[in-house]
Amino acid sequence: MQTVRIALGERAYDIHVGAGLVGRADLIVPVLTAKRVAIVTNTTVAPLYLDAVARPLADAGVSVATAILPDGEEYKDWQTLNAIYDAMLAARCDRQTTVIALGGGVIGDMAGFAAATFMRGVPFIQIPTTLLAQVDSSVGGKTGINHPRGKNMIGAFHQPRLVLADMNTLATLPQRELAAGMAEVIKHGLIRDVAYFEWLEANMDRLVRRDSAALARAVERSVEIKAEVVALDERETGPRALLNFGHTFGHAIEAGMGYGKWLHGEAVAAGMMMAADLSARLGQLRASDVARVRALLERAGLPVVAPALGGDRYLELMSIDKKAESGRIRFILLERLGSAYIRPETPPALLAETLTACAA
Amino acid sequence: MQTVRIALGERAYDIHVGAGLVGRADLIVPVLTAKRVAIVTNTTVAPLYLDAVARPLADAGVSVATAILPDGEEYKDWQTLNAIYDAMLAARCDRQTTVIALGGGVIGDMAGFAAATFMRGVPFIQIPTTLLAQVDSSVGGKTGINHPRGKNMIGAFHQPRLVLADMNTLATLPQRELAAGMAEVIKHGLIRDVAYFEWLEANMDRLVRRDSAALARAVERSVEIKAEVVALDERETGPRALLNFGHTFGHAIEAGMGYGKWLHGEAVAAGMMMAADLSARLGQLRASDVARVRALLERAGLPVVAPALGGDRYLELMSIDKKAESGRIRFILLERLGSAYIRPETPPALLAETLTACAA
Repeated sequence: MQTVRIALGERAYDIHVGAGLVGRADLIVPVLTAKRVAIVTNTTVAPLYLDAVARPLADAGVSVATAILPDGEEYKDWQTLNAIYDAMLAARCDRQTTVIALGGGVIGDMAGFAAATFMRGVPFIQIPTTLLAQVDSSVGGKTGINHPRGKNMIGAFHQPRLVLADMNTLATLPQRELAAGMAEVIKHGLIRDVAYFEWLEANMDRLVRRDSAALARAVERSVEIKAEVVALDERETGPRALLNFGHTFGHAIEAGMGYGKWLHGEAVAAGMMMAADLSARLGQLRASDVARVRALLERAGLPVVAPALGGDRYLELMSIDKKAESGRIRFILLERLGSAYIRPETPPALLAETLTACAA
Repeated sequence: MQTVRIALGERAYDIHVGAGLVGRADLIVPVLTAKRVAIVTNTTVAPLYLDAVARPLADAGVSVATAILPDGEEYKDWQTLNAIYDAMLAARCDRQTTVIALGGGVIGDMAGFAAATFMRGVPFIQIPTTLLAQVDSSVGGKTGINHPRGKNMIGAFHQPRLVLADMNTLATLPQRELAAGMAEVIKHGLIRDVAYFEWLEANMDRLVRRDSAALARAVERSVEIKAEVVALDERETGPRALLNFGHTFGHAIEAGMGYGKWLHGEAVAAGMMMAADLSARLGQLRASDVARVRALLERAGLPVVAPALGGDRYLELMSIDKKAESGRIRFILLERLGSAYIRPETPPALLAETLTACAA
């Protein structure tokens, strides 16, 4: 087990990365305010891991409530969130009850938002069971739900007390979801660490075969990179925006297709290709580097061509994205492999070319 | 105009108290992140004050979106909150849009929670138009909505950037709502400042006649007292609980009657009588002091007898209140006039006597 310490002053916490962590009540109990937890999970994860988490806690004298939600991004809404509140109130959870999110990013976001808002805020632990949640949701404190007009429009920043990233849970992950997580892993290399990007090029076959040591190394390094960026900027007013590389395009893809059609990571992969293409059109990224990005995404099993929604529709979808301010669309682009920057405005003609070239 | 500075480190803000403040765009504009606001108000307040707030802002070059909600505690729910999100998204509000709450406590709580959660948090200004909101909601950062199982069960802490307490708005306030605000004013004297309690005894007739100078003095001193208590304990883990004097009983009254039947301040008034009675039964408060509390509440036009819900129903309602932890009911009681304390447990027999004696 490796541990990455997220330095956030009085809200600092540990991310443990290793095999067989879901049942480690000995890691959980010391961070509880009181011996009461509410485990939030879904119908897919519950049969696999709920007992493994709950039983050792119960054996340690912890009272355990559960909320089992339907599985899928399309349920990341108020109604499902309310099911968490209902379950917690029915179980007489109080302000000292710790919410444990057991599942992927949707569960983490919703359980985290429930924790942020239940009785104006209770403690929160994450046990992410997907690669995406392990490398992305476990750092940064973002929680929330979707709104018909946009993804994650309603939410809060709420830091966990602890994260347990168990490599064993990746063994049961569908191939498509593993690939979706790999999109964020590749993103971390692209925006900040060309050596890591090259390590991914050298090790993508091991990762796709789910070599546990390679996965643990990727989770650890990705979490470190995200933590470095977030530590600069906890409330996302400046450099943290770099983590949105591929996401302005990606969110437009998700919203345009209807949430749930493409996985978040798939949309981000196609979005990163659009951002790389736009970077090249601006004369920054070389064509050979764009080709390397495409090749690595393809080896990870990710889509590299966006759906043909039409240029106007893309512009409309992106202008209500949270990253849009004052009507201008702010993109995160690459000045080279391993280094991203924020571009407040882009020549409309070049953007139009990218929207045509990268969607089909 | 007097100004009370709320010292909260980097989230410090000013409460201005005076006459004619609603139209003071010159006070608002300097605290805006960008010249964009969303004014949240209700169908009662909008015809009275919306133009007075919006027009000077528009004249100052601020883009103004509005959300006008139905009036009443019964609308303090997810559906109405969602109407704020919808209006803000339809108006293309972004992360730099400041939410302005124009109205009473319900508007302040809902607009504040919308601000806390819209795109994971935007800035927030309060223009409270009721005495209750001026003395209570404008300090402490509490925001939220009700849940069928309890009041304010869903919420967040979110501090305003600025509060404008305009005495002129109290002129249009229904008598019953003025009295409800007075309950919190009296509470502030009871829990922390016997001299203020005595000033209220000496000046209650002026206050009930809406003497503007007397009201401004009461708002200023109440805000100072609340700020002193909150500054000790921003997240409500310790001494801040003293502000809940009368509220454990009061919330039970509100929930038991159905939200909206009694005003919050009315329920708190009857709840304070119950807490005073229980304090006397514990041998702390003298019978003559209980009589002084009753007399002052009555002069303010407040109820001093709780509804007869039955002792068991009261216990049931109080045990799911947020202040209940580990099944014990924690009361805030008086050791003397002007000094409250937290009592973690109370002999059940004495509590039963209070529930019988104070309800009819």
